[in-house]
Amino acid sequence: MSETTVLAMAGCGIVGSAVALKLLNQREYYREKTGCDLELRYIFSRSFGKAQAAGIDDSYFLTDPGKILADPEVSIVIELMGGVDFAREFVVKALTAGKHVVTANKAMLALHGSELLALARTKGVTLSFEASCAGGIPIIRALQDGLVANQIDALYGIVNGTCNYILSSMSQKGQDYHTALAAAQAIGFAEADPTFDVAGIDSAHKLSILASLAFDCQADFASIPVTGIDTLDAMDVVFGKELGYVVKLLAVANRLPDGLSLRVRPTFIATGHPLAWVSGPFNAVSVYGDTVGHTMYYGRGAGGKPTASAVIADIISVASGVTPTRFNQKRARPDLTHPVVQLPLGRIRGRFYIRCMVIDIPGVFAALASALGRNGVSISSVLQKELPDADRSIDPVPIVITTHTVNEGDLERAIREIDELECTVQPSVCIEILDEFQESFS
Amino acid sequence: MSETTVLAMAGCGIVGSAVALKLLNQREYYREKTGCDLELRYIFSRSFGKAQAAGIDDSYFLTDPGKILADPEVSIVIELMGGVDFAREFVVKALTAGKHVVTANKAMLALHGSELLALARTKGVTLSFEASCAGGIPIIRALQDGLVANQIDALYGIVNGTCNYILSSMSQKGQDYHTALAAAQAIGFAEADPTFDVAGIDSAHKLSILASLAFDCQADFASIPVTGIDTLDAMDVVFGKELGYVVKLLAVANRLPDGLSLRVRPTFIATGHPLAWVSGPFNAVSVYGDTVGHTMYYGRGAGGKPTASAVIADIISVASGVTPTRFNQKRARPDLTHPVVQLPLGRIRGRFYIRCMVIDIPGVFAALASALGRNGVSISSVLQKELPDADRSIDPVPIVITTHTVNEGDLERAIREIDELECTVQPSVCIEILDEFQESFS
Repeated sequence: MSETTVLAMAGCGIVGSAVALKLLNQREYYREKTGCDLELRYIFSRSFGKAQAAGIDDSYFLTDPGKILADPEVSIVIELMGGVDFAREFVVKALTAGKHVVTANKAMLALHGSELLALARTKGVTLSFEASCAGGIPIIRALQDGLVANQIDALYGIVNGTCNYILSSMSQKGQDYHTALAAAQAIGFAEADPTFDVAGIDSAHKLSILASLAFDCQADFASIPVTGIDTLDAMDVVFGKELGYVVKLLAVANRLPDGLSLRVRPTFIATGHPLAWVSGPFNAVSVYGDTVGHTMYYGRGAGGKPTASAVIADIISVASGVTPTRFNQKRARPDLTHPVVQLPLGRIRGRFYIRCMVIDIPGVFAALASALGRNGVSISSVLQKELPDADRSIDPVPIVITTHTVNEGDLERAIREIDELECTVQPSVCIEILDEFQESFS
Repeated sequence: MSETTVLAMAGCGIVGSAVALKLLNQREYYREKTGCDLELRYIFSRSFGKAQAAGIDDSYFLTDPGKILADPEVSIVIELMGGVDFAREFVVKALTAGKHVVTANKAMLALHGSELLALARTKGVTLSFEASCAGGIPIIRALQDGLVANQIDALYGIVNGTCNYILSSMSQKGQDYHTALAAAQAIGFAEADPTFDVAGIDSAHKLSILASLAFDCQADFASIPVTGIDTLDAMDVVFGKELGYVVKLLAVANRLPDGLSLRVRPTFIATGHPLAWVSGPFNAVSVYGDTVGHTMYYGRGAGGKPTASAVIADIISVASGVTPTRFNQKRARPDLTHPVVQLPLGRIRGRFYIRCMVIDIPGVFAALASALGRNGVSISSVLQKELPDADRSIDPVPIVITTHTVNEGDLERAIREIDELECTVQPSVCIEILDEFQESFS
């Protein structure tokens, strides 16, 4: 325990610089606090700009990762490069060389997690990834350790700070998507090319990791239905608010009798739910366990220092022997589990918000109601406003309908019929309304 | 890992029954999930009523704990009796007999935690207590593991569900304390004798445990200033709401340049703070780390099953070898740390709500303002309402003042002066207004 653990890092951008600075400046603090003496020996990076700006000495830098793999004293490799193919290749080499790996790379894990975990086990080392989901929030540990006594019933996550910041602006300031995105870009909360975040891909990566752990299964990233926030109309944010809901990009997983539903999409949640007030760049994950009921974890889901907090927690867990001990637990890692039946959206049951854009001629509401009724969709509430400036005979008006619990497949059929009506001038919008999950306490 | 771990339990009330049922009914599930085969062999209890009602077989029951201590195969003892002296004596015997102990007993830990932890270490065994604070929320693990890379700057906790339920009722339904207490008692959220909860003692026990871990110190329970909710006036809940605050019984710890402030008292928190919407019997703890910033943990702080979730997580961590590995980490347990300077309330700085009850004669506001000004207390806002039915010459009127940041010692002096004024007819009420803690990201 008082031996020195030698570390090498690959990738030194915002997160890498934060991790390196902490490791270098707080070495004595961590040793005193945990008994682990952590020596950062190498930093492999293709660009040293951020690290140099942060004041990290050039002597740590390598441009060839081979030295890391060849140094038998390096026991933990920290992968913070991002991207999939090169990172995967490097991690495979590091594990094969008998080195523990700590990574924040959700894309790599979503696509190749099971393979890499299995390789780690074969080589007698470990792969840790607390920083891959929800930044500094110790949610991986909660699922693997704190909630281990539970069968998880459901998980609702706000796991992308960029989207949450944009949606908070739309909701609180009444901005439209493009205005809110531009403002987020201006202060560095959104990338110049924000596609990965706003299209929901990043959230789906994280959901596949979280669901694998929560449900002891191999979730298939490619089968997760994903809708981003980039097509969300400000009008729906406003109407939702009037109905008592806040829109969030939610990553949802819940257990159904015949499989698991995983989905990422803009979702309405009642203002009384703990996730509803999670605003700005914060992340939060609600986990519903069969024993503990509802627990929720909140914090910063991105940023150099918050993410560094999770990376260093993983390093210390490996260095102290905790992770190597835990890593051998049966089923605690997805590679020892089985693929799961992931249900298509048509198979889930839920409540929905529907906005139809119709020409307001006599009989139009009857036509909508009939289409819904024919498909077994029962109406809970209707919101139709007079638009003073509109010409009713040519301008479309929004009719907002909320449903009782329906089968999403039935709803899809009803919407197809509505969208084919002559009075319908734009495709209807459907947004799931996620109710508080009923705690099971089984 | 595939060996059987033999368990014995002492105490079998609501929590004990829930733990026993899970261990007996889910043995195969836990073995499959974690590799730990957990055999519950004995249940020592002075009353078997709850356990029998839960359907636990009589063959497990002992009325003499000696058999537990004498059976060399028992490796983990689960202490769920509650109370201090007998529990402590039993835990000392169990540790001395070389058995790991898992406990939910916050009172015992608050008073004797360091002694028991040191004994465990001497005997080469471990003492775990996830269930002692905030029920099923894995907050102990967050402090010891997930946030290990952080120096903790502050911790704000809602850690007593009874108080939070009563305060939520007062705030949301406009009830006074006694009505809200009676309603909580009627549905089992408050004990027949609620003193321990409503006077803040239980919260202070938990705060001393959480602070010891968060600040790597030995917090002294007896030095924690505690005010309960039992003297809270419904009027102040209403006035606070008008000012944008919610009242919560907060257990607060924060680091100051010359020591640590620990305190438990009804506190106003802005409606925008995540803790403000934690309502009903739920608990939540906000932890501010120097690296991660603000993280928050939410869930059920009491009840058989939620608490059982934490107890069983501890059992599995011990049985799998994780706790024995972690337990040797330096400073990770308070017994290896030092007592800390705990500052009296007079030494903290904060904002406050003051309600003075005065006869509304000319010059009264000047007299209040002078008393505050003389002691360096700067006024931020004043709220005085006309009371239509009151006789201004004889009925006291409330004057509500909020302060800018002041030294609490200065405020205490000002309040003493105000309470001695001739126009003051009741002792003034002071409630701290806790602002969002400024994240340090150091």
